[in-house]
Amino acid sequence: MTFKEFYNSVLNTSYTPDDVFPFSIKKMYFKKGAIITTYGQIESGLYFMNQGIVEMAIKSYAIERIIDFFFENEMFCAFTSFLDQLPTDVQIVALTDCEVECIDREGLLAAYEESLPANKFGRILTEQGYLRKSIREKGLLCKTAEERYVEMLNSHSKYLNHIPVNKIARYLGIHPESLSRIRKKMSS
Amino acid sequence: MTFKEFYNSVLNTSYTPDDVFPFSIKKMYFKKGAIITTYGQIESGLYFMNQGIVEMAIKSYAIERIIDFFFENEMFCAFTSFLDQLPTDVQIVALTDCEVECIDREGLLAAYEESLPANKFGRILTEQGYLRKSIREKGLLCKTAEERYVEMLNSHSKYLNHIPVNKIARYLGIHPESLSRIRKKMSS
Repeated sequence: MTFKEFYNSVLNTSYTPDDVFPFSIKKMYFKKGAIITTYGQIESGLYFMNQGIVEMAIKSYAIERIIDFFFENEMFCAFTSFLDQLPTDVQIVALTDCEVECIDREGLLAAYEESLPANKFGRILTEQGYLRKSIREKGLLCKTAEERYVEMLNSHSKYLNHIPVNKIARYLGIHPESLSRIRKKMSS
Repeated sequence: MTFKEFYNSVLNTSYTPDDVFPFSIKKMYFKKGAIITTYGQIESGLYFMNQGIVEMAIKSYAIERIIDFFFENEMFCAFTSFLDQLPTDVQIVALTDCEVECIDREGLLAAYEESLPANKFGRILTEQGYLRKSIREKGLLCKTAEERYVEMLNSHSKYLNHIPVNKIARYLGIHPESLSRIRKKMSS
């Protein structure tokens, strides 16, 4: 899916002519292992994933924890830094070769001044981001690693074999050995 | 502050005439201890706190955890349920007598169809909610209970003596005795 198709689907519109599209989009490519946003950077772009997978990590005391993965047709960025323009405490890394479209923050803010569809789009997307964060928060508070792994399987099974096991374990907050035990138990 | 003053401040506008205000607002009062939103309810209102304090709790296995407090001039509701219209897993209870203004969900959605300022307001408010949730998530992952208590003191010291100690402890995820130790250490 292209970003424009995604934009139209969010707004429940079949078509937006190019000349009234409220902000510009830039195609970008990242090689597997590339750092898209690094710790301490001030986020200036919002990305739409055409193809690929990224991880979002945060440093928690001595260890690095993975707080999210983003897949095809999803938007991602260091969103808190994008909003408050303070140095980000997350890092975004390409887990596979990635093809993305990037919306520049300045262009988006300019569109927010005047454009009803841009504000609708931004509002709905932020609502979805909020829901995603809530689900994760409740998962951390109320679910076991096994329950969270089953959810990952249900929602993103076709991508999971592209993510190293130790990264999935770090996302679930458990040792890779514990994840192996869970996987063995589930396949038996 | 009234909700209309809050609305104008969010939109950086000095004045919105009553006849172009994009949705209606209803004044409501809740007695201390009243349940504003109960577990399993589908959220249909968005509240602005004129005066008072509420807690937001979630059931985590056998225990109930407090995930947030809301104070004067803040907006609150079971926002995930407000968005997805599924039964909420949080409960909102008045910790003091509360005076609030309520925006009905249907009225807000109708305003979102056509109104640029309503969408701007909704977008900015959701962005703020997202930032609040992020700060809390990072606190849970990366901060000690003592650090989080100091943050509470810094941001809301004037309200804290209205909240029972056991509720603050339940918010920090520690035993009331541990909170007493932290408080003693800080005052010595």
